[in-house]
Amino acid sequence: MSSVWGKNFRLSIFGESHGPAIGVVIDGLPPGLKLDEDELHAFMSRRAPGKSFSTPRVEKDIPVIRSGVLNGYTTGTPLCAIIENTDTRSSDYSEVSRLARPSHADYTGFVRYQGYADTRGGGHFSGRLTAPLVFAGGVAKQLLAEHGIFIGGHISSIADINDKYPDNLNLTRDHLEAVAKKPFPVFDDGKCKEMLDIIEQAREDGDSVGGVVACYALGVPAGIGSPMFEGVENIAASIIFGIPAVKGVEFGSGFDGTRLRGSENNDPMRIKDGEFITETNNHGGIIGGITSGMPIVVRAAIKATPSISREQRTVDYINSENAVISIKGRHDPCIVPRAVPCVEAGLAIALAELFLDGSVTGVRV
Amino acid sequence: MSSVWGKNFRLSIFGESHGPAIGVVIDGLPPGLKLDEDELHAFMSRRAPGKSFSTPRVEKDIPVIRSGVLNGYTTGTPLCAIIENTDTRSSDYSEVSRLARPSHADYTGFVRYQGYADTRGGGHFSGRLTAPLVFAGGVAKQLLAEHGIFIGGHISSIADINDKYPDNLNLTRDHLEAVAKKPFPVFDDGKCKEMLDIIEQAREDGDSVGGVVACYALGVPAGIGSPMFEGVENIAASIIFGIPAVKGVEFGSGFDGTRLRGSENNDPMRIKDGEFITETNNHGGIIGGITSGMPIVVRAAIKATPSISREQRTVDYINSENAVISIKGRHDPCIVPRAVPCVEAGLAIALAELFLDGSVTGVRV
Amino acid sequence: MSSVWGKNFRLSIFGESHGPAIGVVIDGLPPGLKLDEDELHAFMSRRAPGKSFSTPRVEKDIPVIRSGVLNGYTTGTPLCAIIENTDTRSSDYSEVSRLARPSHADYTGFVRYQGYADTRGGGHFSGRLTAPLVFAGGVAKQLLAEHGIFIGGHISSIADINDKYPDNLNLTRDHLEAVAKKPFPVFDDGKCKEMLDIIEQAREDGDSVGGVVACYALGVPAGIGSPMFEGVENIAASIIFGIPAVKGVEFGSGFDGTRLRGSENNDPMRIKDGEFITETNNHGGIIGGITSGMPIVVRAAIKATPSISREQRTVDYINSENAVISIKGRHDPCIVPRAVPCVEAGLAIALAELFLDGSVTGVRV
Amino acid sequence: MSSVWGKNFRLSIFGESHGPAIGVVIDGLPPGLKLDEDELHAFMSRRAPGKSFSTPRVEKDIPVIRSGVLNGYTTGTPLCAIIENTDTRSSDYSEVSRLARPSHADYTGFVRYQGYADTRGGGHFSGRLTAPLVFAGGVAKQLLAEHGIFIGGHISSIADINDKYPDNLNLTRDHLEAVAKKPFPVFDDGKCKEMLDIIEQAREDGDSVGGVVACYALGVPAGIGSPMFEGVENIAASIIFGIPAVKGVEFGSGFDGTRLRGSENNDPMRIKDGEFITETNNHGGIIGGITSGMPIVVRAAIKATPSISREQRTVDYINSENAVISIKGRHDPCIVPRAVPCVEAGLAIALAELFLDGSVTGVRV
Repeated sequence: MSSVWGKNFRLSIFGESHGPAIGVVIDGLPPGLKLDEDELHAFMSRRAPGKSFSTPRVEKDIPVIRSGVLNGYTTGTPLCAIIENTDTRSSDYSEVSRLARPSHADYTGFVRYQGYADTRGGGHFSGRLTAPLVFAGGVAKQLLAEHGIFIGGHISSIADINDKYPDNLNLTRDHLEAVAKKPFPVFDDGKCKEMLDIIEQAREDGDSVGGVVACYALGVPAGIGSPMFEGVENIAASIIFGIPAVKGVEFGSGFDGTRLRGSENNDPMRIKDGEFITETNNHGGIIGGITSGMPIVVRAAIKATPSISREQRTVDYINSENAVISIKGRHDPCIVPRAVPCVEAGLAIALAELFLDGSVTGVRV
Repeated sequence: MSSVWGKNFRLSIFGESHGPAIGVVIDGLPPGLKLDEDELHAFMSRRAPGKSFSTPRVEKDIPVIRSGVLNGYTTGTPLCAIIENTDTRSSDYSEVSRLARPSHADYTGFVRYQGYADTRGGGHFSGRLTAPLVFAGGVAKQLLAEHGIFIGGHISSIADINDKYPDNLNLTRDHLEAVAKKPFPVFDDGKCKEMLDIIEQAREDGDSVGGVVACYALGVPAGIGSPMFEGVENIAASIIFGIPAVKGVEFGSGFDGTRLRGSENNDPMRIKDGEFITETNNHGGIIGGITSGMPIVVRAAIKATPSISREQRTVDYINSENAVISIKGRHDPCIVPRAVPCVEAGLAIALAELFLDGSVTGVRV
Repeated sequence: MSSVWGKNFRLSIFGESHGPAIGVVIDGLPPGLKLDEDELHAFMSRRAPGKSFSTPRVEKDIPVIRSGVLNGYTTGTPLCAIIENTDTRSSDYSEVSRLARPSHADYTGFVRYQGYADTRGGGHFSGRLTAPLVFAGGVAKQLLAEHGIFIGGHISSIADINDKYPDNLNLTRDHLEAVAKKPFPVFDDGKCKEMLDIIEQAREDGDSVGGVVACYALGVPAGIGSPMFEGVENIAASIIFGIPAVKGVEFGSGFDGTRLRGSENNDPMRIKDGEFITETNNHGGIIGGITSGMPIVVRAAIKATPSISREQRTVDYINSENAVISIKGRHDPCIVPRAVPCVEAGLAIALAELFLDGSVTGVRV
Repeated sequence: MSSVWGKNFRLSIFGESHGPAIGVVIDGLPPGLKLDEDELHAFMSRRAPGKSFSTPRVEKDIPVIRSGVLNGYTTGTPLCAIIENTDTRSSDYSEVSRLARPSHADYTGFVRYQGYADTRGGGHFSGRLTAPLVFAGGVAKQLLAEHGIFIGGHISSIADINDKYPDNLNLTRDHLEAVAKKPFPVFDDGKCKEMLDIIEQAREDGDSVGGVVACYALGVPAGIGSPMFEGVENIAASIIFGIPAVKGVEFGSGFDGTRLRGSENNDPMRIKDGEFITETNNHGGIIGGITSGMPIVVRAAIKATPSISREQRTVDYINSENAVISIKGRHDPCIVPRAVPCVEAGLAIALAELFLDGSVTGVRV
């Protein structure tokens, strides 16, 4: 079991990279949400491959809604969206079936599914499965927008190049909307240039690079989420770790914050315009699992794409012998830009889940 | 809702720091597991306060099993364990009820629970609630031990001092058992001394420090876990973020790994003694959510204790006015050592959950 | 796994009949519910044994609240209530451990738990485990009462004697409160006499009788529940079948209604005092899983107590040989009266669950 | 939320009667199950309309598998099957949008979904949504068949005519396979004739009739299921009540059994050919929620089709006025025959769910 998520905003994602179709069922949407399909497609196009810095595989990735929407509004019953797989070239992956690509799920998936999994193009493990996730995230974003919440993200770093950007306290929706429009979503244009150079160099070397994605939710009221296991952090991490290549998730000052003393990492509180605010935002908008009203800040570590054309040592797991592999096919030397809307989707779905929790925002005694 | 976790190894944790009792119900344990209560107590004592580097509050924290165990074996029906709260001094916390302690859940909990939550000593948000979590983790460890799995951890860093230790590939059970016996679980004695000095200095300054905990699971077979939302990473993170003060979770090379190229971060595979192994372990034992048979490596960022005696700016959230607070009471300048068994417990529970998943290790066609 | 229930109003029930204690954790209660403990005890006393028509075992069954309530109000964090087991006489059950009591869970539990279950007094299978269920139901009733909902029930039949009572359309809260006060909750006193005679005769014969319990929820607004798997019927049945001895659950006209034509079983609609009502209530207040605003009607079939002192053919499942058994101990010739509050509790918990579902009564776009 | 079910064998059903498509995602299937699509279609055709005694609407109802199956075997990742809606005539339902059809979900669905639900042909409430349920049940049946389990059913009664059939103890697979081949699945041909006459008479009268479906599972080993909330009865009922028109579910002797004394309803045990058996089967194969090894017996009450052409009193819920309705369109005077495979599907899914529960049949200490 694997691809079902949520208690209130429930997802069931299906499909394999080179199978007939991929898609998602979303169960639990409130009725009467006006869905802007153009906005959904625009959001999904940020994840789509085929841009200059990315894989040459061209996907249309147009999701077709098969249920749950009538006359442009959600009905309240399950919404199913399907994306047909049209542009697949399985022959590129012919070697995969017996040689494990290092740091790919070929071998672990083989053991887990006893050899029955569809491994073409990564099958159900493929990054392509983030398309339905991003679709669901786009729906969640529109649901949250009705409550004044905006979610946006950018590339925080590629390899050891860090973007320069407004701090976690003063980011605005305008900042985030502006960066989302860029094909390579980085605030600082100079750093952007450096990052693109690094990616290009990796491509030339038959190699790849990783990075960090940062996402923000603005306008979230205080009091959403719960202590222990249903905090914003637990819920968000439980989705974001579902994005292939994510190996770390942190909130607020995260790992870097562990080098600060309490007096530095604590966020002093003040009253501003009648609202309780914090003077810094090391807590990333979440304390005790619950939102504080400050911007939510999440960062996800994206490992370098494991598919590289350079020769690697590996095993033939069918014949149990050592081997070398040189991965052919259309590979992206850096998937970090495409991961930005994926992490936004994860955060949006997590917040939608908590907004729809009756014990949090529902019935009051 | 908040404190229920799991699908197979199900926890329901309850209690408030200064209420009558705290505890946990574990539902889903297989029958016939021989419980070693001494080992459970020994594991819990590693979390207990009252040691020289820690809070002077002395808790006995003896869990009493009220159901689910007969003649030393689990019955298969729910196991409830309760810890009575005996040593509580609520007066230390009298200021809490109207002044928000910065970076504590006082204010967020107040909004979430509309003023009805028990805030004495942190109430249900208290670090004390990790006692039943560690109890459950101790049970999970014994369950996993029946399958040859061993889990151990240590302090990876305090502030900017890093422990020196065997790499993620070559750690042994002996290493981990040795470090677990130390009151301050650090491999390198020189680094240990530096860390203790930093903590002592923070205490003298009325301040606190944070750090990073690293945990390992050895002996986990390949093929446990699932892609997307039920991977080891998602499941483990969804618990570990429930430990108060955790602000980041990473696996394998994690955030640092994002600075490596694919050719550096990928783990080449080889056959060794008839087994498939990797030559490095940047993947931390998990690929595509599924175990690879290599050691599982998880690291958790623990923020500096927010309770410090130094004066801080804050708000009186009842009267809506700015204020200053100087937190009295028994506070720990560094909770990282006590967090080690908590993270071990989180990892153990996550693996127990996945071991008990019928689709992973259960019925076969 | 077994004794965890719910998504919003989550229960975790634990304990064995002759173990140290039984109890329940309720997670998901909204904060600020004023709990009337006297009312809770009064409700629980309707389930308690020790009345003239019932088992002579005297239980105090006083639940002690260990968390989740402060100054008489729910905190919003988990509520744990524990009932100590004080009056147990295990020797009465000494034969149980090797001879299967017919139609008891001795043999099925033995297989399920591989011989490790605590079988004394039925262990976790005991009707005694309905005490924490009724406690939780009492809490749910108080939560629902804040929304104007009242739940009550009565004995609909014992063996082939049927109570006479107001039809499913015209029952009032006064009717239900009056019948709840009776030690043997039957509307018609003549029928009550007949039922008691039948029970007494069964007792004299070393035998037992069964019956049917009917319960009602008044004041439930239209629009609660969902089609398919989260309808009121599915949710209520999933609890009510958890009451030992329940072998059937029906709503509205139920099984008898299958003998009616559509023109007879359909409930015509009218407007009355500006409200939509139905002229009959064969649908039992639920259509398509969703409440209609009419009284909810549920009936549960309670089999005759399987514990009888008459000799029965059985097997010794340890030694694999045929045997006869004559069950000693304190047995109730009819548990139907005690089942009434259990079914009320089941219905109350189901409705609380649905009231706390954010998609039903929570956030609106 | 509504149409998601299960913990191990997880369903997510979507679609509306007159929308573009309906379907189901099944998550949790083990890998390597050989799917016989012909057998699936044959099972689904038993539910399909268009037979002589049934609605004239002709549906092809051919499910197309979009994921989760490769070369005829399940992959272990989610299986999605979709049925396109091709033969819909919405104009027949034009009156529905403002007049509530009595005992249909028109009004309750209107309130629940605030007027946004797709009401054409019943929308997501339509009996047509049982097609994906039956598909999933067909898959479950094939999974169970690998473990020697066979599930079959028949019409137990129509109105007040009862089928005559072998008792709950002696039914064989041959009996059940034979009755499944009949277009009107009744054992006794004389009773079949009487039932068909009653249905034809109802049709002539513009009316409808209901009945009871009985289903059996043969070959289920003892020890499957759990006490309290995860017993076979709870789990099965939580699906079967999702079949539209089901108003009651009972197991074994059910409601009729409540008129028996304990000495009559208890099932004596014996050893036969080295196996523990019961001499009667009033318990319907389940005691304490756990299978006994005897045939599982479940019965579901199916109310008369609420769609009748006879004039009925109702309300116009948009204009809030009394009205009369005469329902046009293609209506089935008796849906009981089509409900037989639905109930079989419900029972099969419930058993698959419990077979895949790691705590029941999975990892052992």
